[in-house]
Amino acid sequence: MKGIELVRKKSEDHKTVILVNDIEIGADQVVPMAGPCAVENKEQLVEIASELKQIGVPILRGGAFKPRTSPYAFMGLGTKGLELLAEAKEETGMAIVTEVMDPGDISSVEPYADILQIGSRNMQNFPLLMAAGKAKKPVLLKRGLAATIQEWLLAAEYIMVSGNEQVILCERGIRTFENFTRNTIDLAAVPIVKSLTHLPVIVDPSHGTGIRELVTPVSKGAVAMGADGLLIEVHTRPEEALCDGDQSLTPSHFKELLEQCEKVAVASGKKGIAKN
Amino acid sequence: MKGIELVRKKSEDHKTVILVNDIEIGADQVVPMAGPCAVENKEQLVEIASELKQIGVPILRGGAFKPRTSPYAFMGLGTKGLELLAEAKEETGMAIVTEVMDPGDISSVEPYADILQIGSRNMQNFPLLMAAGKAKKPVLLKRGLAATIQEWLLAAEYIMVSGNEQVILCERGIRTFENFTRNTIDLAAVPIVKSLTHLPVIVDPSHGTGIRELVTPVSKGAVAMGADGLLIEVHTRPEEALCDGDQSLTPSHFKELLEQCEKVAVASGKKGIAKN
Amino acid sequence: MKGIELVRKKSEDHKTVILVNDIEIGADQVVPMAGPCAVENKEQLVEIASELKQIGVPILRGGAFKPRTSPYAFMGLGTKGLELLAEAKEETGMAIVTEVMDPGDISSVEPYADILQIGSRNMQNFPLLMAAGKAKKPVLLKRGLAATIQEWLLAAEYIMVSGNEQVILCERGIRTFENFTRNTIDLAAVPIVKSLTHLPVIVDPSHGTGIRELVTPVSKGAVAMGADGLLIEVHTRPEEALCDGDQSLTPSHFKELLEQCEKVAVASGKKGIAKN
Amino acid sequence: MKGIELVRKKSEDHKTVILVNDIEIGADQVVPMAGPCAVENKEQLVEIASELKQIGVPILRGGAFKPRTSPYAFMGLGTKGLELLAEAKEETGMAIVTEVMDPGDISSVEPYADILQIGSRNMQNFPLLMAAGKAKKPVLLKRGLAATIQEWLLAAEYIMVSGNEQVILCERGIRTFENFTRNTIDLAAVPIVKSLTHLPVIVDPSHGTGIRELVTPVSKGAVAMGADGLLIEVHTRPEEALCDGDQSLTPSHFKELLEQCEKVAVASGKKGIAKN
Repeated sequence: MKGIELVRKKSEDHKTVILVNDIEIGADQVVPMAGPCAVENKEQLVEIASELKQIGVPILRGGAFKPRTSPYAFMGLGTKGLELLAEAKEETGMAIVTEVMDPGDISSVEPYADILQIGSRNMQNFPLLMAAGKAKKPVLLKRGLAATIQEWLLAAEYIMVSGNEQVILCERGIRTFENFTRNTIDLAAVPIVKSLTHLPVIVDPSHGTGIRELVTPVSKGAVAMGADGLLIEVHTRPEEALCDGDQSLTPSHFKELLEQCEKVAVASGKKGIAKN
Repeated sequence: MKGIELVRKKSEDHKTVILVNDIEIGADQVVPMAGPCAVENKEQLVEIASELKQIGVPILRGGAFKPRTSPYAFMGLGTKGLELLAEAKEETGMAIVTEVMDPGDISSVEPYADILQIGSRNMQNFPLLMAAGKAKKPVLLKRGLAATIQEWLLAAEYIMVSGNEQVILCERGIRTFENFTRNTIDLAAVPIVKSLTHLPVIVDPSHGTGIRELVTPVSKGAVAMGADGLLIEVHTRPEEALCDGDQSLTPSHFKELLEQCEKVAVASGKKGIAKN
Repeated sequence: MKGIELVRKKSEDHKTVILVNDIEIGADQVVPMAGPCAVENKEQLVEIASELKQIGVPILRGGAFKPRTSPYAFMGLGTKGLELLAEAKEETGMAIVTEVMDPGDISSVEPYADILQIGSRNMQNFPLLMAAGKAKKPVLLKRGLAATIQEWLLAAEYIMVSGNEQVILCERGIRTFENFTRNTIDLAAVPIVKSLTHLPVIVDPSHGTGIRELVTPVSKGAVAMGADGLLIEVHTRPEEALCDGDQSLTPSHFKELLEQCEKVAVASGKKGIAKN
Repeated sequence: MKGIELVRKKSEDHKTVILVNDIEIGADQVVPMAGPCAVENKEQLVEIASELKQIGVPILRGGAFKPRTSPYAFMGLGTKGLELLAEAKEETGMAIVTEVMDPGDISSVEPYADILQIGSRNMQNFPLLMAAGKAKKPVLLKRGLAATIQEWLLAAEYIMVSGNEQVILCERGIRTFENFTRNTIDLAAVPIVKSLTHLPVIVDPSHGTGIRELVTPVSKGAVAMGADGLLIEVHTRPEEALCDGDQSLTPSHFKELLEQCEKVAVASGKKGIAKN
């Protein structure tokens, strides 16, 4: 694949394992990352984080800067949201993954994040990729809505060539003619990317389907196909969520998901689900 | 979903189980169907069928009438192919699934087939759907290349409303911008269709990806997500196959696939893989 | 382009002109074909046909056999519809283009049709293509919903290799993620096909957009880009039409369309719009 | 259309005309913008600009900051490129349209540009849209590769709500399954956008097709369908171009294009092509 150099797998057992707190991403366990679409307020975040902590989830997701299709939608709490994430981290010990959209924001977001997320709309935001390549934190790079696998890997190459070797790839659905689901999750991308690169690959079934009832089956499929992790939207009150409520699970629903995925993970040769 | 009447699931436990020989499709085992893309000659078919029989595969696939994009490609042996399938059935006891393209051919194909296949290009060939609806054999209905799930279910409705209640749905990939794979397999369609209808759903990872190395991981994903069966191209000499060699597995490779899928099936709540 | 033999343009000025009544399709005028989606009853068809005749439209379209996504939708009047088309022809002298879906129907439809239409859902219905290849009437071959240009030309090759040299290609929109319009009309296909083949190419802006207000601008674009004809749904009472009312023009609206297209045709090097 | 407020057409004759030098964009002439994909060096730019000046082209395009899929491709001359554009402007009097990718670059690019271009990959780069909304120069907003028309208009809304009322929309092709062309140009978007908004709409047939031979027919189609302008890649030595050579026209080929478009423009009710 042309232009795929640093990202390319050099031998059968070549793999990059990324360490976040004590959790290995890309090793022999499936790593769950969960939390709300957006950080909404302190109560919401603390409530969700403590429930997730109890289930054993090691990494908390939550958006402070939210890319929204409409300029009139809730865009996140910004810096205030970052501070709330820091409090949640302090209280639970969970690692934080949060999105960054502007190259100029990376230096201010980096101290709050254990993993910097680059969203699908920014997969070819080259100044952002290069800025993330200069950060010291791992980067979770979502596949673009209309990005081929080659373009996605070239985006990862941008980050690596800029100096950051810790890239986690995240399949989150592509845009097709099918409109029953929000996007069409391309699970075949998991084994493809694992055969071409040494980087960990995770799956986001929440955005990949947009439908709560599909999150568990898609997660099981992703695990059976070799995904190194899952990124899932969980909310204690999905019906009140400021964004993506329709695709959010409750913590108890999410707990069941993890139990089912644990069995599939073991049946597929992994050592189960990573716990904090 | 508008127009979905006979196909619609009426209650949580409403499901249609289709009996082929002694095998139940849509019950608690995953049913493998395997064989060559096309029936090429007697030696080829007998060799493949006996290897599959030994592995325990209950249903043999093989095309006698092949829809080909180019009029200059091999189009199958036609009636001669049907006779070879009958011989293979006689010898191995395997059930036969084979494609029909012309409404006028159904009466001549039906005696040779245990399952009549309608291919993706014919998913909206309404005269064919109605003719298949008058047949006495189960119909395996592949999803069209650009068919929404609703259109696919409406095609099944055509068959049912014409009198045939035995319809097996088969996801085989949709056409998207991604061209690394032959098609983009839409595995989320499996739980979606299972939630909307009472019909069995199987997956064809061979056409769904077009790449041999992806057939096993996609099969595992399909099983983890609830597929009732797998339709897979197997050839003893993939490099000499007259069609679809690139996506065909050898019998020994296929045996490993079944062993891996067996574990995933059990971990996902099924009773394993059906055997003859 | 592989497999494109009989369809291929052999020299810069190689072009096939198809004669229907006295009208040349593929020559220096743009040929309009218009009429209702479906033949509904005698009054409707006579009313529409006489209005179109007055405007000068040489070819009347109207479906007797209608491919419908749902088995519960109106499927056309069948043979009765063909007879009504024959009456309309008798009365107005207009040529008739009507669809055929079943290879077994071609012999019964052929006597009523001046042009046999193969719809987009049947573009890869190979038995139908081969049967149409044995007919003596020109074939209007619509591009499939998800067909590449190469597949479309290979479908035309099927007809030609079966013996029928009179093929008219019709771009009618492809399926994409954009859902503002019913389909995405691929107007670039017009100059592409004209550069690759010697066959006439027409455009169907009614199905290509599904929106009445877009039919005129898309028609103008098609003419400016070299289309040899236009296939347009016209109904005297669009709001009462049994199918496709939303995309149907009234005769007076259609008359304006032709006047605007006439100017664009002349500005683009054609000799205007063909009239009966 | 939800969220479309400032961008929305309030009455039939509501339209925004944007003045660049003395040229009106969105009025009764079609405005051509042309030039190389990237500014490569002084000689190249001066040569191309003077040829375009002679033809009468009022606006020069040229990229100083180039978004490239691969990090190993030529990314433009950056600030040096902006200075060369300033020299070309000084010498020819042409207005300049050039791309900006990083919100942090807007203040440094703005003095050199008469129109700030936001490319398709950045259509949902919201910090960039908001920063462009604070600029004093008109913004040319390209449609994203996989953006619906609604998302595109919401991106324009972002710019307007941030304070900049001068937005020019540019259709440049969307990504579909068809791979004969680089993208599928969605010309129906032109009349759709003109019916929904008061903003000028232009078309980029170079990126929309990726094939030199298609640029002229697509331009004619765009003009016939109401486009307010054309953005076209022109290079004096296309075979030596550092990017997009395959889709670049020579100045003499481009001159012919304008002559043909002039006729179509007049036939479609415009007052021809704008000249410097």
